[in-house]
Amino acid sequence: MHARAASPRYNPLMTATEREVLEANAAFYAAFAQRDADAMDALWAREVPVACLHPGWEPLSGREEVVSSWRRILLGGGAPPDIRCEDASVHVAGDAAWVVCAEIVPGGSLAATNVFVRERGAWRMAHHHASPLPRPAPRPAGFRS
Amino acid sequence: MHARAASPRYNPLMTATEREVLEANAAFYAAFAQRDADAMDALWAREVPVACLHPGWEPLSGREEVVSSWRRILLGGGAPPDIRCEDASVHVAGDAAWVVCAEIVPGGSLAATNVFVRERGAWRMAHHHASPLPRPAPRPAGFRS
Repeated sequence: MHARAASPRYNPLMTATEREVLEANAAFYAAFAQRDADAMDALWAREVPVACLHPGWEPLSGREEVVSSWRRILLGGGAPPDIRCEDASVHVAGDAAWVVCAEIVPGGSLAATNVFVRERGAWRMAHHHASPLPRPAPRPAGFRS
Repeated sequence: MHARAASPRYNPLMTATEREVLEANAAFYAAFAQRDADAMDALWAREVPVACLHPGWEPLSGREEVVSSWRRILLGGGAPPDIRCEDASVHVAGDAAWVVCAEIVPGGSLAATNVFVRERGAWRMAHHHASPLPRPAPRPAGFRS
């Protein structure tokens, strides 16, 4: 299943499950934008090992490490002053799902992959990977490491 | 489920399914290292919409766009002269799975998120997101956009 939506507008062809996943994704960006560390903590999965790739950071793994990184980011003044999600596409496969989207921050944008799992009926974040998007320009001709 | 392995060594506590996913992930890096565009084409999913976030590129979506980007990278001289996967951690949720790993290339390393789905018994890549890892240095104090 696959659908694309600029949250919070939903495509009428989207399934109920896809809407649920996009709502979980929107809750992540709401917690981020509002610097709500408790909400951020609550939306990460508890029953699977989680991981997080913050832009420019070494990989983080495990709930304690990931959630504490978010507390430092959200409460420590390092979060961007504004962030919003655009161009979210959602993919569901059973009790796992992933969203690919853009994160719009002042002065630029990032690409994100957000993986969710269904735990006791609720979609929880299991993995987040964000990295800077290029500024609008001609696409590079090849892979650049 | 979760396991970590430096491919091709497998943790004896890993499940058979986790091994299968890590083998699919290893096949992706083998095709990449060998610049085998046909093998790369074959390992991408056919039954779900795929997406790809190459480092520094705009997001790509759809099998034709993604596979043709890999043909350009692998056959057009833009691929790094060597690439290998390290520190792969695998996560399985039913017929979906994701691997978080490092990509070691000459002069640096990247972090990757690779999402797989099980199609007719075979694990196929549904999404790839790679972005540069920082050079070894103290971790930044906060989120940097």
